[in-house]
Amino acid sequence: MAASQPPRGGTAATFAPPVMQARRWLDGVSFLADRPLLNVSQAAPMDPPPEALRQAIADAALNDPGAHLYGPVLGLPELRAEIAAEWSRAYGGDIRAERVAITQGCNQAFCAAIASIAAAGDEVILPTPWYFNHKMWLDMAGMRAVPLATGTNLLPEVQRAGALITPRTRAIVLVTPNNPTGLEYPAELVADFLALCRRHGLALILDETYRDFDSRDGAPHRLFADPDWGDTLIHLYSFSKAYRLTGHRVGALIAGEPVVTEVEKFLDTVAICPNQLGQRAALWGLRHLGAWKADERAEILARRDALSRNMSALPGWELMGAGAFFAWLRHPFDIGSDPLARRLVAEAGVLLLPGGMFLPETDPGARDQLRIAFANIDRPGLQALFGRLAAFRP
Amino acid sequence: MAASQPPRGGTAATFAPPVMQARRWLDGVSFLADRPLLNVSQAAPMDPPPEALRQAIADAALNDPGAHLYGPVLGLPELRAEIAAEWSRAYGGDIRAERVAITQGCNQAFCAAIASIAAAGDEVILPTPWYFNHKMWLDMAGMRAVPLATGTNLLPEVQRAGALITPRTRAIVLVTPNNPTGLEYPAELVADFLALCRRHGLALILDETYRDFDSRDGAPHRLFADPDWGDTLIHLYSFSKAYRLTGHRVGALIAGEPVVTEVEKFLDTVAICPNQLGQRAALWGLRHLGAWKADERAEILARRDALSRNMSALPGWELMGAGAFFAWLRHPFDIGSDPLARRLVAEAGVLLLPGGMFLPETDPGARDQLRIAFANIDRPGLQALFGRLAAFRP
Repeated sequence: MAASQPPRGGTAATFAPPVMQARRWLDGVSFLADRPLLNVSQAAPMDPPPEALRQAIADAALNDPGAHLYGPVLGLPELRAEIAAEWSRAYGGDIRAERVAITQGCNQAFCAAIASIAAAGDEVILPTPWYFNHKMWLDMAGMRAVPLATGTNLLPEVQRAGALITPRTRAIVLVTPNNPTGLEYPAELVADFLALCRRHGLALILDETYRDFDSRDGAPHRLFADPDWGDTLIHLYSFSKAYRLTGHRVGALIAGEPVVTEVEKFLDTVAICPNQLGQRAALWGLRHLGAWKADERAEILARRDALSRNMSALPGWELMGAGAFFAWLRHPFDIGSDPLARRLVAEAGVLLLPGGMFLPETDPGARDQLRIAFANIDRPGLQALFGRLAAFRP
Repeated sequence: MAASQPPRGGTAATFAPPVMQARRWLDGVSFLADRPLLNVSQAAPMDPPPEALRQAIADAALNDPGAHLYGPVLGLPELRAEIAAEWSRAYGGDIRAERVAITQGCNQAFCAAIASIAAAGDEVILPTPWYFNHKMWLDMAGMRAVPLATGTNLLPEVQRAGALITPRTRAIVLVTPNNPTGLEYPAELVADFLALCRRHGLALILDETYRDFDSRDGAPHRLFADPDWGDTLIHLYSFSKAYRLTGHRVGALIAGEPVVTEVEKFLDTVAICPNQLGQRAALWGLRHLGAWKADERAEILARRDALSRNMSALPGWELMGAGAFFAWLRHPFDIGSDPLARRLVAEAGVLLLPGGMFLPETDPGARDQLRIAFANIDRPGLQALFGRLAAFRP
């Protein structure tokens, strides 16, 4: 793009939604009853939330008039307060309810964060592989997503990030545990990024959608323990995975007051308010499902172990990263990941996403890398997945 | 702003949410039990949806696993099909389900429409007074909202709109019945705007959030009867008012396929999908609440009549427009609408929005006009409202 023509955004500036694109590969393909599709394309719990939570939602629908009416733009006060209290405990920091905003899912939290700190023509640094909706929003907002290439360990490097900063840079985005690679970023790495951002007056947007499935016990980082975190940090969270509430669209953003004030403008205009039943579901989950969530985490960590063990069934494949819901792999075949993914639908009954959906077009990883949302399927399902991949002949 | 610096957008480019701003005027003000606040600031039904609909939502929460899980970006197929069929009947046109997108409320439908047809630096024509969230979104998107002044009859004029079109213009937005004026735009006027837009290759964004409360029987316009409507028209709708589902955030957008394809990118990135329980509530309402909705409409039309009759109690005031949920008035006092609105909170126990929230700063109407969401309160409430306004001394 010529320097005289700054990016202008709009949907024309970005690509089609990858998950919907992949879903369309299923059109016209039929699967046998004894060999159903293994869908590992999206981090999407297959089962509804536990019975007691469904009952709580039903009770609210019947008996709580406010569950059907407009509420505050920034969300249900009780939910904001509950998040503030629980996060303060979990991260060892002082997070007040005024710094919490509830959003219609975590994608919206990201959009709100970006709109609150940047404008068309600005730059935002994204480690690669990136989460495609982050890239899409930056495209639509007329901003430049500056790729921060990671090495074979898939960790972003602070020094390399520093070299990408220009006067137009407004933020660095980290996702940990990472989507799409599954990597859990070390606490020191995250702290170093905060320091880098602070030094340059940038926001550090920390997307912790998958925090509930981090394999590390205790706080995954200490940023909130810094009393000045609000000058730099914007934390994002999702209720979709931990409580199986994907269909309710509830996420959260935690930031300093000046950012929250800006976020309120965005949310008022795009959302008016988050949906009320979903917020009540999230609140009930926070208050009552701690033990249940711990079991979910244990199960997903067991699936990750099973995944690692099963790798020996796939000679030539490499497991580059695995954690939370995702595994990031390199395949050994002499075809691109995109045609491979399309062929796997009909020939192996497997739907996964090719690496190119998470990488700049020119990145060589687009050719042989791919993402598997392994946490979607149980351990027998994982074994079946590996069996099918092992039997595939390119 | 200098011509060399095109608008760049972001939340810094716009103002604070008016409804939340007004709500903050209530802080620290107490109201007596026998003289409660009359809140006519927002079109917000005060009561939850009917029992049977609440039961349907509760049943879905308990028994329909899909009510908690991700669904298609563009919405529940059954809801899209139901809308297509009902709208085809109501407007005498051919609307297919592929042309319907479900959104998280109608504000989001507007944002999606704009992002799909325009980019930073483009212009969109808005008749004044405008709906503030439309203006806010254009600001945030780095676009220019071009005000189309209306005369004392509050109707936009096609010729005047034509004179505002430049090579940068991408769309004209009409809201009918109008927010904030309540005006129902004549079918011929709407048709003339479609012709104007088509001639210039612009989109006509027609926000019909309040269509269920139009006082006219039959279709309020014939645009969908034009087999080529999809080349120009983008229709917006909300389930919030008709079924009292404000807290569920469900809206809809109907447009030609190329626009819907672009809209899908926006919704995937900002929403992932509309919330599932809200969509099921909307579908149940469409299928079962036709007669109930007709009664609601009759009640609101009766409130409008009561409002008109009560005007005689307010010497010097002028009712400039009334319809759907809103009345647009001119007050006779020698103070601005903004200080007047603030004073009315404590001195009259009335919360309404001043005209300046809906007008460019330089518009003289900002001084003496204001909006009342009269449909929020019942007929005794309306009488009380007029009594308090009549007793007010500036």
